[in-house]
Amino acid sequence: MKLYTYFRSSAAYRVRIALNLKGLAYEAVPVHLLRSGGEQLQPAYRAVNPAAMIPSLEIDDGATLTQSMAIIEYLDETHPAVPLMPADPLGRARVRALALTVACDIHPLGNLRVLKYLVHELTVDDEAKAAWSRHWISEGFTALEAMLAGSPATGRFCHGDTPTLADCCLVPQVFNALRFEVDMTRFPTIARIHAACGERAGFAAAHPSKQPDAE
Amino acid sequence: MKLYTYFRSSAAYRVRIALNLKGLAYEAVPVHLLRSGGEQLQPAYRAVNPAAMIPSLEIDDGATLTQSMAIIEYLDETHPAVPLMPADPLGRARVRALALTVACDIHPLGNLRVLKYLVHELTVDDEAKAAWSRHWISEGFTALEAMLAGSPATGRFCHGDTPTLADCCLVPQVFNALRFEVDMTRFPTIARIHAACGERAGFAAAHPSKQPDAE
Repeated sequence: MKLYTYFRSSAAYRVRIALNLKGLAYEAVPVHLLRSGGEQLQPAYRAVNPAAMIPSLEIDDGATLTQSMAIIEYLDETHPAVPLMPADPLGRARVRALALTVACDIHPLGNLRVLKYLVHELTVDDEAKAAWSRHWISEGFTALEAMLAGSPATGRFCHGDTPTLADCCLVPQVFNALRFEVDMTRFPTIARIHAACGERAGFAAAHPSKQPDAE
Repeated sequence: MKLYTYFRSSAAYRVRIALNLKGLAYEAVPVHLLRSGGEQLQPAYRAVNPAAMIPSLEIDDGATLTQSMAIIEYLDETHPAVPLMPADPLGRARVRALALTVACDIHPLGNLRVLKYLVHELTVDDEAKAAWSRHWISEGFTALEAMLAGSPATGRFCHGDTPTLADCCLVPQVFNALRFEVDMTRFPTIARIHAACGERAGFAAAHPSKQPDAE
Protein backbone atom coordinates (compact mmCIF):
# COMPACT_ATOMS: atom_id res chain seq x y z
CA MET A 1 0.00 0.00 0.00
CA LYS A 2 1.06 3.58 -0.66
CA LEU A 3 0.15 6.33 1.79
CA TYR A 4 0.25 9.88 0.45
CA THR A 5 1.21 11.72 3.59
CA TYR A 6 2.68 14.88 5.09
CA PHE A 7 4.54 14.56 8.37
CA ARG A 8 2.51 17.24 10.17
CA SER A 9 -0.90 16.48 8.65
CA SER A 10 -3.22 15.47 11.45
CA ALA A 11 -5.38 13.37 9.13
CA ALA A 12 -2.36 11.49 7.70
CA TYR A 13 -1.08 10.95 11.26
CA ARG A 14 -4.39 9.21 12.14
CA VAL A 15 -3.98 6.74 9.27
CA ARG A 16 -0.30 6.11 10.09
CA ILE A 17 -1.34 5.14 13.62
CA ALA A 18 -4.00 2.73 12.33
CA LEU A 19 -1.60 1.11 9.84
CA ASN A 20 1.03 0.71 12.57
CA LEU A 21 -1.38 -0.67 15.17
CA LYS A 22 -2.52 -3.28 12.66
CA GLY A 23 1.05 -4.07 11.62
CA LEU A 24 0.37 -3.23 7.97
CA ALA A 25 3.41 -2.27 5.91
CA TYR A 26 3.11 0.72 3.60
CA GLU A 27 5.23 2.95 1.42
CA ALA A 28 5.11 6.61 2.48
CA VAL A 29 4.80 9.05 -0.44
CA PRO A 30 5.38 12.55 0.97
CA VAL A 31 3.28 15.40 -0.43
CA HIS A 32 4.55 18.76 0.81
CA LEU A 33 1.65 21.06 1.72
CA LEU A 34 3.75 24.23 1.64
CA ARG A 35 6.18 23.68 -1.25
CA SER A 36 5.42 24.52 -4.92
CA GLY A 37 2.29 26.41 -3.86
CA GLY A 38 1.08 23.23 -2.14
CA GLU A 39 1.99 19.95 -3.84
CA GLN A 40 -1.47 18.60 -2.98
CA LEU A 41 -3.02 21.23 -5.28
CA GLN A 42 -0.93 20.28 -8.31
CA PRO A 43 -2.22 18.13 -11.19
CA ALA A 44 0.00 15.15 -10.28
CA TYR A 45 -1.68 14.77 -6.90
CA ARG A 46 -5.16 15.72 -8.10
CA ALA A 47 -4.90 12.69 -10.40
CA VAL A 48 -4.57 10.58 -7.22
CA ASN A 49 -7.21 12.44 -5.20
CA PRO A 50 -9.44 14.98 -6.99
CA ALA A 51 -10.32 16.51 -3.61
CA ALA A 52 -6.63 17.55 -3.31
CA MET A 53 -6.54 16.62 0.37
CA ILE A 54 -4.07 14.52 2.37
CA PRO A 55 -4.04 11.58 3.07
CA SER A 56 -4.89 9.11 0.30
CA LEU A 57 -4.22 5.40 0.53
CA GLU A 58 -3.56 3.43 -2.65
CA ILE A 59 -4.37 -0.17 -1.86
CA ASP A 60 -2.77 -3.15 -3.54
CA ASP A 61 -5.48 -3.63 -6.18
CA GLY A 62 -4.85 -0.05 -7.38
CA ALA A 63 -7.95 1.60 -5.85
CA THR A 64 -7.36 4.83 -3.96
CA LEU A 65 -9.15 5.62 -0.73
CA THR A 66 -9.56 9.12 0.72
CA GLN A 67 -10.74 10.70 3.98
CA SER A 68 -8.83 9.44 7.01
CA MET A 69 -11.84 8.08 8.94
CA ALA A 70 -13.12 6.21 5.88
CA ILE A 71 -9.65 4.77 5.31
CA ILE A 72 -9.34 3.57 8.92
CA GLU A 73 -12.80 1.95 8.88
CA TYR A 74 -11.87 0.23 5.59
CA LEU A 75 -8.62 -1.07 7.09
CA ASP A 76 -10.57 -2.32 10.10
CA GLU A 77 -13.15 -4.12 7.96
CA THR A 78 -10.58 -5.75 5.69
CA HIS A 79 -7.89 -6.49 8.31
CA PRO A 80 -9.92 -7.38 11.39
CA ALA A 81 -6.97 -8.62 13.46
CA VAL A 82 -6.20 -5.93 16.08
CA PRO A 83 -9.68 -4.39 15.82
CA LEU A 84 -9.96 -0.61 16.04
CA MET A 85 -13.76 -0.68 16.43
CA PRO A 86 -15.82 -2.32 19.20
CA ALA A 87 -18.02 -5.26 18.21
CA ASP A 88 -21.32 -3.82 19.57
CA PRO A 89 -23.31 -1.14 17.70
CA LEU A 90 -23.59 1.16 20.74
CA GLY A 91 -19.85 0.98 21.32
CA ARG A 92 -19.21 1.62 17.64
CA ALA A 93 -21.51 4.65 17.76
CA ARG A 94 -19.64 5.99 20.77
CA VAL A 95 -16.21 5.51 19.17
CA ARG A 96 -17.40 7.18 15.96
CA ALA A 97 -18.91 10.08 17.92
CA LEU A 98 -15.62 10.65 19.77
CA ALA A 99 -13.65 10.47 16.51
CA LEU A 100 -16.09 12.80 14.72
CA THR A 101 -15.86 15.31 17.57
CA VAL A 102 -12.20 15.67 16.59
CA ALA A 103 -12.64 15.20 12.83
CA CYS A 104 -15.65 17.52 12.38
CA ASP A 105 -15.73 19.89 15.33
CA ILE A 106 -12.04 20.64 15.89
CA HIS A 107 -9.67 19.70 13.10
CA PRO A 108 -11.34 21.39 10.06
CA LEU A 109 -11.14 24.80 11.71
CA GLY A 110 -7.38 24.63 12.23
CA ASN A 111 -6.62 23.27 8.77
CA LEU A 112 -3.88 25.03 6.77
CA ARG A 113 -6.25 26.24 4.03
CA VAL A 114 -8.51 27.84 6.65
CA LEU A 115 -5.61 29.60 8.39
CA LYS A 116 -4.46 30.86 4.98
CA TYR A 117 -7.92 32.30 4.29
CA LEU A 118 -7.92 34.06 7.68
CA VAL A 119 -4.57 35.69 6.89
CA HIS A 120 -4.98 36.47 3.19
CA GLU A 121 -8.72 37.22 2.85
CA LEU A 122 -9.61 38.48 6.32
CA THR A 123 -6.19 40.05 7.13
CA VAL A 124 -6.12 38.38 10.54
CA ASP A 125 -2.78 38.89 12.34
CA ASP A 126 -0.60 36.13 13.82
CA GLU A 127 -1.89 36.58 17.34
CA ALA A 128 -5.56 36.41 16.32
CA LYS A 129 -4.79 33.41 14.10
CA ALA A 130 -3.23 31.53 17.03
CA ALA A 131 -6.17 32.55 19.25
CA TRP A 132 -8.58 31.15 16.63
CA SER A 133 -6.81 27.76 16.63
CA ARG A 134 -6.62 27.63 20.42
CA HIS A 135 -10.30 28.59 20.73
CA TRP A 136 -11.63 25.75 18.58
CA ILE A 137 -9.31 23.17 20.09
CA SER A 138 -10.36 24.28 23.60
CA GLU A 139 -14.06 24.22 22.69
CA GLY A 140 -13.76 20.77 21.17
CA PHE A 141 -11.61 19.38 23.97
CA THR A 142 -14.12 20.68 26.54
CA ALA A 143 -16.79 18.60 24.79
CA LEU A 144 -14.50 15.60 24.41
CA GLU A 145 -13.32 15.75 28.03
CA ALA A 146 -16.98 15.72 29.19
CA MET A 147 -17.77 12.77 26.89
CA LEU A 148 -14.75 10.81 28.14
CA ALA A 149 -14.77 11.73 31.85
CA GLY A 150 -18.53 11.18 32.13
CA SER A 151 -18.68 7.66 30.71
CA PRO A 152 -17.94 4.30 32.32
CA ALA A 153 -16.99 3.07 28.83
CA THR A 154 -13.78 5.11 28.95
CA GLY A 155 -10.86 2.95 30.00
CA ARG A 156 -7.12 3.15 29.60
CA PHE A 157 -7.96 4.41 26.10
CA CYS A 158 -10.99 6.36 24.78
CA HIS A 159 -13.15 3.25 24.71
CA GLY A 160 -12.04 0.40 26.93
CA ASP A 161 -8.49 -0.82 27.34
CA THR A 162 -7.39 -1.17 23.73
CA PRO A 163 -6.92 1.61 21.15
CA THR A 164 -9.74 2.42 18.74
CA LEU A 165 -10.46 4.81 15.88
CA ALA A 166 -11.14 7.44 18.58
CA ASP A 167 -7.56 7.25 19.86
CA CYS A 168 -6.24 7.41 16.27
CA CYS A 169 -8.01 10.80 16.01
CA LEU A 170 -7.32 12.05 19.54
CA VAL A 171 -3.52 11.76 19.53
CA PRO A 172 -2.83 13.92 16.43
CA GLN A 173 -5.23 16.55 17.78
CA VAL A 174 -3.31 16.69 21.07
CA PHE A 175 -0.10 17.08 19.04
CA ASN A 176 -1.70 20.14 17.42
CA ALA A 177 -2.97 21.45 20.74
CA LEU A 178 0.55 21.32 22.16
CA ARG A 179 1.88 23.20 19.11
CA PHE A 180 -0.64 25.95 19.84
CA GLU A 181 0.16 25.88 23.57
CA VAL A 182 -3.32 24.87 24.68
CA ASP A 183 -3.32 24.31 28.45
CA MET A 184 -3.83 20.53 28.68
CA THR A 185 -4.25 20.56 32.48
CA ARG A 186 -7.87 21.58 31.76
CA PHE A 187 -8.39 18.25 30.00
CA PRO A 188 -7.02 15.61 32.39
CA THR A 189 -8.75 12.60 30.81
CA ILE A 190 -7.58 13.52 27.33
CA ALA A 191 -4.04 14.10 28.63
CA ARG A 192 -4.05 10.76 30.47
CA ILE A 193 -5.20 8.85 27.36
CA HIS A 194 -2.68 10.71 25.19
CA ALA A 195 0.08 9.59 27.56
CA ALA A 196 -1.15 5.98 27.49
CA CYS A 197 -1.12 6.03 23.68
CA GLY A 198 2.41 7.43 23.64
CA GLU A 199 3.65 4.26 25.36
CA ARG A 200 2.52 2.13 22.42
CA ALA A 201 5.03 1.60 19.62
CA GLY A 202 2.38 2.04 16.90
CA PHE A 203 1.51 5.53 18.08
CA ALA A 204 5.13 6.54 18.70
CA ALA A 205 6.28 5.48 15.22
CA ALA A 206 3.48 7.49 13.60
CA HIS A 207 4.58 10.76 15.27
CA PRO A 208 5.40 13.59 12.83
CA SER A 209 9.00 13.77 14.07
CA LYS A 210 9.55 10.13 13.04
CA GLN A 211 8.46 10.53 9.41
CA PRO A 212 10.83 10.44 6.41
CA ASP A 213 9.69 13.95 5.39
CA ALA A 214 10.00 15.46 8.91
CA GLU A 215 11.68 18.85 9.05
CA MET B 1 -36.89 7.42 19.83
CA LYS B 2 -36.46 11.14 20.55
CA LEU B 3 -34.54 13.33 18.13
CA TYR B 4 -33.22 16.61 19.54
CA THR B 5 -33.36 18.74 16.43
CA TYR B 6 -33.46 22.26 14.98
CA PHE B 7 -35.28 22.73 11.70
CA ARG B 8 -32.36 24.44 9.94
CA SER B 9 -29.53 22.36 11.43
CA SER B 10 -27.79 20.55 8.61
CA ALA B 11 -26.64 17.74 10.89
CA ALA B 12 -30.15 17.18 12.30
CA TYR B 13 -31.54 17.23 8.74
CA ARG B 14 -29.18 14.34 7.82
CA VAL B 15 -30.54 12.19 10.65
CA ARG B 16 -34.17 13.08 9.84
CA ILE B 17 -33.58 11.84 6.28
CA ALA B 18 -32.10 8.55 7.53
CA LEU B 19 -34.95 7.97 9.99
CA ASN B 20 -37.51 8.69 7.28
CA LEU B 21 -35.84 6.50 4.64
CA LYS B 22 -35.83 3.62 7.13
CA GLY B 23 -39.42 4.30 8.15
CA LEU B 24 -38.48 4.73 11.81
CA ALA B 25 -40.91 6.79 13.89
CA TYR B 26 -39.45 9.39 16.26
CA GLU B 27 -40.51 12.24 18.48
CA ALA B 28 -38.96 15.58 17.46
CA VAL B 29 -37.73 17.64 20.43
CA PRO B 30 -36.86 21.11 19.07
CA VAL B 31 -33.82 22.88 20.51
CA HIS B 32 -33.65 26.49 19.32
CA LEU B 33 -30.08 27.46 18.44
CA LEU B 34 -30.77 31.21 18.56
CA ARG B 35 -33.23 31.62 21.46
CA SER B 36 -32.19 32.04 25.14
CA GLY B 37 -28.56 32.55 24.08
CA GLY B 38 -28.70 29.18 22.33
CA GLU B 39 -30.85 26.50 23.99
CA GLN B 40 -28.20 23.90 23.09
CA LEU B 41 -25.75 25.67 25.42
CA GLN B 42 -28.06 25.57 28.47
CA PRO B 43 -27.71 23.03 31.31
CA ALA B 44 -30.94 21.21 30.33
CA TYR B 45 -29.54 20.25 26.95
CA ARG B 46 -25.96 19.71 28.18
CA ALA B 47 -27.40 17.00 30.42
CA VAL B 48 -28.53 15.25 27.21
CA ASN B 49 -25.36 15.94 25.21
CA PRO B 50 -22.31 17.35 27.02
CA ALA B 51 -20.89 18.48 23.66
CA ALA B 52 -23.87 20.90 23.39
CA MET B 53 -24.32 20.13 19.70
CA ILE B 54 -27.41 19.21 17.68
CA PRO B 55 -28.60 16.52 16.94
CA SER B 56 -28.81 13.89 19.65
CA LEU B 57 -30.88 10.74 19.37
CA GLU B 58 -32.28 9.13 22.52
CA ILE B 59 -32.95 5.51 21.67
CA ASP B 60 -35.59 3.39 23.31
CA ASP B 61 -33.31 1.84 25.95
CA GLY B 62 -32.48 5.36 27.20
CA ALA B 63 -28.97 5.67 25.69
CA THR B 64 -28.22 8.91 23.85
CA LEU B 65 -26.25 8.97 20.61
CA THR B 66 -24.50 12.04 19.23
CA GLN B 67 -22.78 13.09 15.98
CA SER B 68 -25.01 12.71 12.93
CA MET B 69 -22.79 10.31 10.97
CA ALA B 70 -22.35 8.04 14.00
CA ILE B 71 -26.13 8.09 14.56
CA ILE B 72 -26.86 7.16 10.94
CA GLU B 73 -24.34 4.31 10.95
CA TYR B 74 -25.89 3.05 14.21
CA LEU B 75 -29.37 3.16 12.69
CA ASP B 76 -28.06 1.29 9.66
CA GLU B 77 -26.42 -1.42 11.77
CA THR B 78 -29.44 -1.94 14.03
CA HIS B 79 -32.18 -1.49 11.39
CA PRO B 80 -30.66 -3.09 8.30
CA ALA B 81 -33.85 -3.02 6.22
CA VAL B 82 -33.50 -0.21 3.65
CA PRO B 83 -29.68 -0.18 3.91
CA LEU B 84 -27.92 3.19 3.75
CA MET B 85 -24.47 1.64 3.35
CA PRO B 86 -23.20 -0.65 0.56
CA ALA B 87 -22.34 -4.23 1.49
CA ASP B 88 -18.75 -4.19 0.15
CA PRO B 89 -15.86 -2.56 2.05
CA LEU B 90 -14.68 -0.50 -0.96
CA GLY B 91 -18.19 0.82 -1.52
CA ARG B 92 -18.54 1.60 2.18
CA ALA B 93 -15.22 3.48 2.08
CA ARG B 94 -16.42 5.50 -0.91
CA VAL B 95 -19.75 6.39 0.70
CA ARG B 96 -18.01 7.40 3.93
CA ALA B 97 -15.46 9.50 2.01
CA LEU B 98 -18.25 11.35 0.18
CA ALA B 99 -20.14 11.90 3.44
CA LEU B 100 -16.99 13.06 5.26
CA THR B 101 -16.20 15.51 2.45
CA VAL B 102 -19.43 17.24 3.45
CA ALA B 103 -19.22 16.61 7.19
CA CYS B 104 -15.53 17.54 7.68
CA ASP B 105 -14.52 19.73 4.75
CA ILE B 106 -17.62 21.89 4.23
CA HIS B 107 -20.17 21.90 7.01
CA PRO B 108 -17.99 22.75 10.06
CA LEU B 109 -16.81 25.99 8.46
CA GLY B 110 -20.34 27.33 7.96
CA ASN B 111 -21.59 26.34 11.39
CA LEU B 112 -23.42 28.99 13.42
CA ARG B 113 -20.77 29.12 16.17
CA VAL B 114 -18.05 29.74 13.57
CA LEU B 115 -20.01 32.53 11.86
CA LYS B 116 -20.60 34.09 15.29
CA TYR B 117 -16.85 34.04 15.99
CA LEU B 118 -16.14 35.71 12.63
CA VAL B 119 -18.57 38.51 13.45
CA HIS B 120 -17.91 39.01 17.16
CA GLU B 121 -14.19 38.23 17.51
CA LEU B 122 -12.86 39.09 14.04
CA THR B 123 -15.39 41.89 13.27
CA VAL B 124 -16.09 40.44 9.85
CA ASP B 125 -18.96 42.24 8.06
CA ASP B 126 -22.05 40.61 6.54
CA GLU B 127 -20.67 40.57 3.02
CA ALA B 128 -17.36 38.94 4.03
CA LYS B 129 -19.25 36.45 6.21
CA ALA B 130 -21.41 35.38 3.25
CA ALA B 131 -18.31 35.19 1.03
CA TRP B 132 -16.67 32.91 3.64
CA SER B 133 -19.63 30.51 3.59
CA ARG B 134 -19.83 30.52 -0.19
CA HIS B 135 -16.08 29.95 -0.51
CA TRP B 136 -15.98 26.78 1.60
CA ILE B 137 -19.13 25.35 0.06
CA SER B 138 -17.72 26.00 -3.43
CA GLU B 139 -14.33 24.48 -2.54
CA GLY B 140 -15.99 21.40 -1.06
CA PHE B 141 -18.49 21.02 -3.89
CA THR B 142 -15.66 21.26 -6.45
CA ALA B 143 -14.04 18.26 -4.73
CA LEU B 144 -17.34 16.41 -4.39
CA GLU B 145 -18.34 17.06 -8.01
CA ALA B 146 -15.00 15.60 -9.17
CA MET B 147 -15.43 12.55 -6.92
CA LEU B 148 -18.98 11.96 -8.20
CA ALA B 149 -18.59 12.85 -11.89
CA GLY B 150 -15.34 10.87 -12.19
CA SER B 151 -16.59 7.56 -10.81
CA PRO B 152 -18.60 4.78 -12.47
CA ALA B 153 -19.97 3.97 -9.00
CA THR B 154 -22.12 7.11 -9.07
CA GLY B 155 -25.66 6.29 -10.14
CA ARG B 156 -29.01 7.95 -9.72
CA PHE B 157 -27.73 8.73 -6.22
CA CYS B 158 -24.19 9.32 -4.88
CA HIS B 159 -23.43 5.59 -4.87
CA GLY B 160 -25.59 3.45 -7.11
CA ASP B 161 -29.32 3.74 -7.54
CA THR B 162 -30.48 3.81 -3.93
CA PRO B 163 -29.81 6.51 -1.32
CA THR B 164 -26.92 6.10 1.12
CA LEU B 165 -25.32 7.98 3.99
CA ALA B 166 -23.65 10.15 1.34
CA ASP B 167 -27.01 11.41 0.06
CA CYS B 168 -28.16 12.02 3.66
CA CYS B 169 -25.21 14.43 3.97
CA LEU B 170 -25.34 15.90 0.46
CA VAL B 171 -28.93 17.14 0.48
CA PRO B 172 -28.72 19.34 3.62
CA GLN B 173 -25.48 20.83 2.29
CA VAL B 174 -27.19 21.78 -0.99
CA PHE B 175 -29.99 23.36 1.05
CA ASN B 176 -27.31 25.52 2.71
CA ALA B 177 -25.63 26.27 -0.61
CA LEU B 178 -28.91 27.56 -2.00
CA ARG B 179 -29.40 29.77 1.07
CA PHE B 180 -25.99 31.30 0.37
CA GLU B 181 -26.75 31.63 -3.35
CA VAL B 182 -23.96 29.33 -4.49
CA ASP B 183 -24.16 28.88 -8.27
CA MET B 184 -25.18 25.21 -8.55
CA THR B 185 -24.78 25.14 -12.35
CA ARG B 186 -21.05 24.64 -11.62
CA PHE B 187 -21.89 21.33 -9.91
CA PRO B 188 -24.17 19.48 -12.33
CA THR B 189 -23.78 16.00 -10.82
CA ILE B 190 -24.49 17.27 -7.30
CA ALA B 191 -27.51 19.20 -8.60
CA ARG B 192 -28.82 16.15 -10.47
CA ILE B 193 -28.51 13.91 -7.40
CA HIS B 194 -30.11 16.58 -5.20
CA ALA B 195 -33.09 16.68 -7.58
CA ALA B 196 -33.37 12.87 -7.56
CA CYS B 197 -33.39 12.87 -3.75
CA GLY B 198 -36.08 15.56 -3.69
CA GLU B 199 -38.45 13.18 -5.44
CA ARG B 200 -38.28 10.72 -2.54
CA ALA B 201 -40.80 11.20 0.25
CA GLY B 202 -38.20 10.51 2.98
CA PHE B 203 -36.02 13.39 1.85
CA ALA B 204 -38.94 15.74 1.26
CA ALA B 205 -40.44 15.17 4.72
CA ALA B 206 -37.07 15.90 6.36
CA HIS B 207 -36.79 19.36 4.74
CA PRO B 208 -36.43 22.25 7.22
CA SER B 209 -39.67 23.86 6.00
CA LYS B 210 -41.61 20.72 6.98
CA GLN B 211 -40.47 20.60 10.61
CA PRO B 212 -42.69 21.40 13.62
CA ASP B 213 -40.26 24.16 14.67
CA ALA B 214 -39.95 25.72 11.17
CA GLU B 215 -40.14 29.52 11.10
